[in-house]
Amino acid sequence: MSLAANKPIDEVIAQLRELLGDRVSTAQAVRDHHGSDESWHETIAPDAVCFPHSTEEVAAIVRLCHDHGVAVIPYGTGTSLEGHIQALEGGVTLDLGQMDQVLRVSTEDLDCTVQPGVTRKQLNEYLRDTGLFFPIDPGADASIGGMTATRASGTNAVRYGTMRESVLSLTVVLPDGRVIRTARRARKSSAGYDLTRLFVGSEGTLGVITEITLRLYGIPEAIAAAVVPFDSLEGAVNTVILTIQSGVPVARIELLDDVQLDAINRYSGFDYPAKTTLFLEFHGTEAGVAEQSEIVRDLAGEFGGGDFSWTTNAEERNKLWQARHDAAYACKALRNNCELWATDVCVPISRLAECILETKRDLEENCTIPAPLVGHVGDGNFHLAFVLDPNDPDERRQAEEINERLVMRALAMDGTCTGEHGVGLGKAKFLVAEHGEAVSVMRLLKQAIDPDNIMNPGKMLPS
Amino acid sequence: MSLAANKPIDEVIAQLRELLGDRVSTAQAVRDHHGSDESWHETIAPDAVCFPHSTEEVAAIVRLCHDHGVAVIPYGTGTSLEGHIQALEGGVTLDLGQMDQVLRVSTEDLDCTVQPGVTRKQLNEYLRDTGLFFPIDPGADASIGGMTATRASGTNAVRYGTMRESVLSLTVVLPDGRVIRTARRARKSSAGYDLTRLFVGSEGTLGVITEITLRLYGIPEAIAAAVVPFDSLEGAVNTVILTIQSGVPVARIELLDDVQLDAINRYSGFDYPAKTTLFLEFHGTEAGVAEQSEIVRDLAGEFGGGDFSWTTNAEERNKLWQARHDAAYACKALRNNCELWATDVCVPISRLAECILETKRDLEENCTIPAPLVGHVGDGNFHLAFVLDPNDPDERRQAEEINERLVMRALAMDGTCTGEHGVGLGKAKFLVAEHGEAVSVMRLLKQAIDPDNIMNPGKMLPS
Repeated sequence: MSLAANKPIDEVIAQLRELLGDRVSTAQAVRDHHGSDESWHETIAPDAVCFPHSTEEVAAIVRLCHDHGVAVIPYGTGTSLEGHIQALEGGVTLDLGQMDQVLRVSTEDLDCTVQPGVTRKQLNEYLRDTGLFFPIDPGADASIGGMTATRASGTNAVRYGTMRESVLSLTVVLPDGRVIRTARRARKSSAGYDLTRLFVGSEGTLGVITEITLRLYGIPEAIAAAVVPFDSLEGAVNTVILTIQSGVPVARIELLDDVQLDAINRYSGFDYPAKTTLFLEFHGTEAGVAEQSEIVRDLAGEFGGGDFSWTTNAEERNKLWQARHDAAYACKALRNNCELWATDVCVPISRLAECILETKRDLEENCTIPAPLVGHVGDGNFHLAFVLDPNDPDERRQAEEINERLVMRALAMDGTCTGEHGVGLGKAKFLVAEHGEAVSVMRLLKQAIDPDNIMNPGKMLPS
Repeated sequence: MSLAANKPIDEVIAQLRELLGDRVSTAQAVRDHHGSDESWHETIAPDAVCFPHSTEEVAAIVRLCHDHGVAVIPYGTGTSLEGHIQALEGGVTLDLGQMDQVLRVSTEDLDCTVQPGVTRKQLNEYLRDTGLFFPIDPGADASIGGMTATRASGTNAVRYGTMRESVLSLTVVLPDGRVIRTARRARKSSAGYDLTRLFVGSEGTLGVITEITLRLYGIPEAIAAAVVPFDSLEGAVNTVILTIQSGVPVARIELLDDVQLDAINRYSGFDYPAKTTLFLEFHGTEAGVAEQSEIVRDLAGEFGGGDFSWTTNAEERNKLWQARHDAAYACKALRNNCELWATDVCVPISRLAECILETKRDLEENCTIPAPLVGHVGDGNFHLAFVLDPNDPDERRQAEEINERLVMRALAMDGTCTGEHGVGLGKAKFLVAEHGEAVSVMRLLKQAIDPDNIMNPGKMLPS
């Protein structure tokens, strides 16, 4: 036996090969691919990548890593935006992409159980003939496991909630390889600590999620979409506030600023006025969506909204939302060879106009980079997408500084540094500013469940 | 100094008197009053009862108890149903009833922050002129702090969720007296472990909740109520399943069995047919509630529903829901000098009819006590109310045995032993049957946050 073979990681890799055969890889390209996400954080490759097929295999792998003190990093589709999967301490990345089975669907209970590698689009494709759908829709076609781990949301959250509200129960492999189920399948329960919610948003730092039971919803009888431009940001935000206050169960209410609208026009071939604009969607009965959109049209009119174009035509609707989901590509198309850096604050909606206006002032004064803005404004959540030249350190610095001021502005307004992207590496430095002494409780939880710190080490909690 | 004065509790009481003056009591009547809830569990009085006025006072009291290893038991209105506040190891009960201020309300953000002693009715009274309301409504006029600690819900949960979905943020005094805030006021966040949900439902075992920020809702433009009797339980439950599946945003959908209906008729002076009956409520616009109730009427008709009587008249509506909320009193009125024992299972709705039918068969075969049934059936949650003679040990035994079989039946259907009442003393013995290995993670959390086990010791986690 060579000296090198005595290193814990080599021993682990040898045993992984016995366990998984060719479903473990140490090829540089595979390792590099798994060492970076879609964020600006640099690639840090793990020592090996495994492709397990079952909870039992995950448990065996984790137990092995645990016994040798080797880090474990769960990986979904690699679409996270804050550096969630970089292997800071090397170790083994668990690519859960081959655990991609929908295990059960209940049309009576409006729920399903999936493996973590199922993506949101795969799930909805699978559900198509059941009359049900899964509403949570981050920009990427992320895996349900990854969405659970980052507490993701998207455009439908204003009506259907986030992964926090969508997950009924989880199967989790603990850092020592034991397997637990966090809850039964009942809609509600008061039986003990809410372990489900503890693991939702835990970013792979407490265990590996291997099954997810999700709430589903009936596809509404009618769906209508609408677009309305505003002369002022306040007008648009006030329309949002009044819409929600009046109890209109709006399914989507998205704000795009003039810069983003212009980018979308160019990319998707629309000719909307390049103004602050709301994209809306209404779900309900035929009469219901007509009534909802009428109420919102009237509200928008009161706050300076322009031509309110609405449609129940599925093709037009899909084109509209495809354009919205393509916002990131539209941004990328603004510059050659650029990278995106997305911010992600969320504030109480009463402070949203103020927060956006101050941020846009900051951009005007201090930013030479294009930075279109989109917002899930019903929730008070918005993103800037800095369209950066990755080889220009000054552009990186601008984005960093503006993001830092944006986060501090949001925190001062009782908001959060991340509405839906998670902490990862990028937001760890803001965690104490946001939560203060509560971070010490988070550390206690991490130490209690993962005392050897093998689960996704270095993420979320500031070192 | 006498020997007795050297006992930690005496020292604590002496220092509490310095801190709080006459807001600490050791009178037997006060201690006894605080040593029991509304359940069948016997009174176990604390050594002293305090009435703090602020987070700072709570922190000082907890620090004092922590330094002397004395137990701390948070107390709201004493309306819990599973023995949550019995002072198993003596110690100090914190009666939070004098912390009864609504601290802020935002009509723009649809939220408010309250002290824990505010009751749900007080809050709604306070909100009356704002156009907002707080929907969570357990039977009792419980305190918001207590409702948070037991993850309570009620008749509106099918539409508005439970305390799990309603709490945005908490201020908590930790077992060592440190004060944390669990989250900012943003509607959603992916910033770290979900401490808010960890403390919601923690039953006073992890700290003392001293401020609660809650989601509120706009009072709907129109509210309609409806009553519809069924010949069969399956017909009623199938109507519920189809209603929810079809996306009708029903606000309340309550099932009462023939025994409960008869009790309510007698108590509240109604003359409904003594059959399995659904009580419903619809929230929306005038046209919306009319449309919703039409859809449900048609569904009920398909499943053997009888005369569907509906009203938007506020007085009739209030009379109906008062009768529903008085169900417990109606039960009590069935027998002289009786006590109620309420069960609380919740199952996936696809198993609800089966679970109720098997339970009613068990009652028929093995129960001589009246046991009316009411259910928050949109959630799969239902209660039997055993109307017991407290002096008859055989009746107690019957209730215990039927409850035990009921819980095991619900667990076998992937349900929970408690949908909304919490674990307390009464359900602790079922926790391992429900959660298995996950209970060991709950123990780790408890040990991490309360290593000296001073917070409400002996509750929730089985010893």
